[in-house]
Amino acid sequence: MIEDSVRRRLDALTKPPGSLGRLEEIVIRYAEISGKEPPRQLRAAAFVFCADHGVTEEGVSAWPREVTRQMVRNFVAGGAAINVLCRHASIASHIIDVGVCGDPVEGVENRRIACGTKNFAREPAMSLDQARQAMQVGAQCVEQSAGRYDLLLCGEMGIGNTTAATALLCAYAGCDPEAVTGPGAGLDAAGVSRKAAVIRRALALHPSRHPLEIAANLGGFEILAIAGLIRQAAAARLPVMLDGFISCAGALVAGALEPGSLNAVLYSHCSAERGHRAMLEFLKARPLLDLDMRLGEGTGAVLATMLMQAAIRIYHEMATFGEAGVSSRN
Amino acid sequence: MIEDSVRRRLDALTKPPGSLGRLEEIVIRYAEISGKEPPRQLRAAAFVFCADHGVTEEGVSAWPREVTRQMVRNFVAGGAAINVLCRHASIASHIIDVGVCGDPVEGVENRRIACGTKNFAREPAMSLDQARQAMQVGAQCVEQSAGRYDLLLCGEMGIGNTTAATALLCAYAGCDPEAVTGPGAGLDAAGVSRKAAVIRRALALHPSRHPLEIAANLGGFEILAIAGLIRQAAAARLPVMLDGFISCAGALVAGALEPGSLNAVLYSHCSAERGHRAMLEFLKARPLLDLDMRLGEGTGAVLATMLMQAAIRIYHEMATFGEAGVSSRN
Repeated sequence: MIEDSVRRRLDALTKPPGSLGRLEEIVIRYAEISGKEPPRQLRAAAFVFCADHGVTEEGVSAWPREVTRQMVRNFVAGGAAINVLCRHASIASHIIDVGVCGDPVEGVENRRIACGTKNFAREPAMSLDQARQAMQVGAQCVEQSAGRYDLLLCGEMGIGNTTAATALLCAYAGCDPEAVTGPGAGLDAAGVSRKAAVIRRALALHPSRHPLEIAANLGGFEILAIAGLIRQAAAARLPVMLDGFISCAGALVAGALEPGSLNAVLYSHCSAERGHRAMLEFLKARPLLDLDMRLGEGTGAVLATMLMQAAIRIYHEMATFGEAGVSSRN
Repeated sequence: MIEDSVRRRLDALTKPPGSLGRLEEIVIRYAEISGKEPPRQLRAAAFVFCADHGVTEEGVSAWPREVTRQMVRNFVAGGAAINVLCRHASIASHIIDVGVCGDPVEGVENRRIACGTKNFAREPAMSLDQARQAMQVGAQCVEQSAGRYDLLLCGEMGIGNTTAATALLCAYAGCDPEAVTGPGAGLDAAGVSRKAAVIRRALALHPSRHPLEIAANLGGFEILAIAGLIRQAAAARLPVMLDGFISCAGALVAGALEPGSLNAVLYSHCSAERGHRAMLEFLKARPLLDLDMRLGEGTGAVLATMLMQAAIRIYHEMATFGEAGVSSRN
């Protein structure tokens, strides 16, 4: 097994065995997922799926819906946090419109399913067919990445999407909306209460326990695209670095449809969004970072990938005890 | 105040205010400490202080004392973890011998105080004069950095130095040796008990409560050098990124001698060494990373500096709401 030989090399490097902790763990995980030694130059790409949410009609976001499209323009122009971080870490980025409202932004990959989801407080967010289409968009990203990238990062943008992600958390993990609903991009306390009430209402309206129906009833196109990317990446043994709360909602969907697909997933960070800890617990995930971030876009995934790049460089470049003439332990 | 204008710019960038969490905090801290906007190209240098410890006579380390000198050779040759990480993050490195035993290694900065400390289970580790000399070595590193570096990283190497650091923690913070002594670079349970007993004996032998006497009685030359670097850096308003357990022991000494000097300090990570959490609590520190690392050398400081580099790039390169034409919140 490749992971055993990776472990042996890590133990031969001039440091107490295991003393680089999670840096070593991530190198081993890479080998386990991919069946390969991590490459010296890790070719990584961030996929930022963007979509609007009908549930914003209910006043669940601190920001107007137009911001989704405006941020897509910002992504294409290179001015957003995810752009700066991807440039900094030499990570490619793909901005994919899976359902933004308004005219398509020039330069974006246009894979729109619809102009936003429906308001799931009143009707299903999308049809089952649309859910499958959105997953297909994510799966195609993996197909186009074969032989081109060694690591895929997931990110997203969509005003209203913490509401969808929280609703999915409640539906899949059985959490209470009042216990896990948070401020998203900046709601005040009254807004959070309203948001929790909207989610409670939606859960009552959509009682189905069928995994795909839950996703279609309460999800978002960007969340389904992430779920599709995860499933296809697992099949292709391509490691996926997830971002925060919304990306993990994609993992909830993928895991509900196909538990084994989560084996390909690496968790980058615990976000400041209130429900993320419960979600990570449900996913049995232990992310690398905990930096009070709550921006999304894939920003946490890039930071964790930076740690991975450093860990892989250590794996390839450090001297062994033999090479350096360092004594072994007593 | 510069930190207010830094905060205003962070809030004008196209993201919900504060949503980059500790990345924003670290940019603001940089400005507070230095009185300057963080420079676009952060010129950073790691100072790796190396020394031996007489207390290794007591069988408190899993590794033979010669490993200190062998690792110095490895540092100079570029094969250790700190070398790989510094190259990866474009950070300069200075390897400084403040008291390694055996012939000086060619290529190292030779600032030896003595051939290791004395065995502090039997006598003071060093004289007060030697303690001042060691701090002077650290202070001179800061003087030589003026105008050359924008951030100083602290690291170290010294077989036996978790014993010294734990003893200092007990002496300054009043901890019980049995409660905070850990395996260092790999002791088994019997070894940890022996190490705790050695520390208990040393504390009884050296009852002084005078801050500098505690440091001289129980410290190490590399720990004192770090303390001296911190004090001088604070005077020069040069931010210092500390590494793990041993570097924080240097902060304990600096803080005991001059509490205000800790204002210049940034804490990179919580190490897996058992006493580090108690030490960080005593220092009221909340480090950026928690990755089960326990290697030292400055490795955690480099990883946290990588986050800082990314944060500074975000600060300078992200578009503002005005520039990007993104609507403000509801």
